[in-house]
Amino acid sequence: MNNGKVVVLSGPSGGGKGTVVKALLELMPEMALSVSATTRQPRAGEVDGREYHFIAKEDFENMIANGEVLEYTSYCDNYYGTPKKPAVEATEQGRDFFLEIEVDGALQIKKRYPEAVLIMLIPPSLSELESRLRQRGTESEEVIAKRLKRAAEEIEFAEKYDYIVVNETGKIEECAERIRSIISAEKNRYCAMKETADNFTSR
Amino acid sequence: MNNGKVVVLSGPSGGGKGTVVKALLELMPEMALSVSATTRQPRAGEVDGREYHFIAKEDFENMIANGEVLEYTSYCDNYYGTPKKPAVEATEQGRDFFLEIEVDGALQIKKRYPEAVLIMLIPPSLSELESRLRQRGTESEEVIAKRLKRAAEEIEFAEKYDYIVVNETGKIEECAERIRSIISAEKNRYCAMKETADNFTSR
Repeated sequence: MNNGKVVVLSGPSGGGKGTVVKALLELMPEMALSVSATTRQPRAGEVDGREYHFIAKEDFENMIANGEVLEYTSYCDNYYGTPKKPAVEATEQGRDFFLEIEVDGALQIKKRYPEAVLIMLIPPSLSELESRLRQRGTESEEVIAKRLKRAAEEIEFAEKYDYIVVNETGKIEECAERIRSIISAEKNRYCAMKETADNFTSR
Repeated sequence: MNNGKVVVLSGPSGGGKGTVVKALLELMPEMALSVSATTRQPRAGEVDGREYHFIAKEDFENMIANGEVLEYTSYCDNYYGTPKKPAVEATEQGRDFFLEIEVDGALQIKKRYPEAVLIMLIPPSLSELESRLRQRGTESEEVIAKRLKRAAEEIEFAEKYDYIVVNETGKIEECAERIRSIISAEKNRYCAMKETADNFTSR
């Protein structure tokens, strides 16, 4: 049986990642979704194991020391990262393991696991992103400006990604289908199929 | 607009290429199908431009000299090859261009056009191929032995291909879907999307 793929999705905030992931999970309900670990305190309404695995700082540092995180970062004196074990378990069972994380974490994963598939989801353009952020009507001008700057910075890293998918306005399903096709295609890449081809004459 | 992809399918005879291509064309009716050129005489029932473009030897040699073939070979004093023009026209119109050719021609194309997508369609195993060939009941033992030997040789070249797809018995549609996913995914690879990503901030 084929192993599942580790699939990483990144992309600018406001680019519609959440909606696309929801549509993708409807297409691929068997896919395992990563839950990050963090050392920060849970906020009201957050449930351990749903939003995050909330763990002690010492435990997180032990996980880092033992190579038990796929990637991590620290922010405001707290760690945030992806535990390795669920990824190993899912992929060994043949399930795909899906992470929605920032560029920095995605590149850490690609470095350690070159077979991970990195997908960047981008809006059609910076001006389209700007109007989407404005339409929400909830963000201040300052926040909008900050997000647009950050988006432009993130997209500089596109060349480190395997795939770029444009989230065209009003085409969520098409976008999710594209991501599903990418995951399907990756399972037929020569590297993933090498064993099958090598064993051909012996079966 | 994205250019269409040049997609090459190869694989052992008896592996079901014809049936899979038919199913694929139903999924992707807009795809352009390559028609090879040859200098051999048409056989009874063959129509110029359908089975082959039948052309004069001198014309074929001019096409080679002018770089107007994507790949070619000579066999029994006749040339066989793929004219370049239909591929260029189709892909510039955004249509995918599909070729079903042998390993040797496929590798010629990959050398000249690294962005071409090479897919090898293989049966589940050599013994499964053997029973498929036997079930036809039309091939002599000698022909079966020759085909199996040739199949094993062809699969040695699998590592030069981008993708390997196994044509599981009775799963033609699934197989065609996998190939469609591969073609779709290739259009989202970073190299194909570079311009979109580069232009992001200017739009």
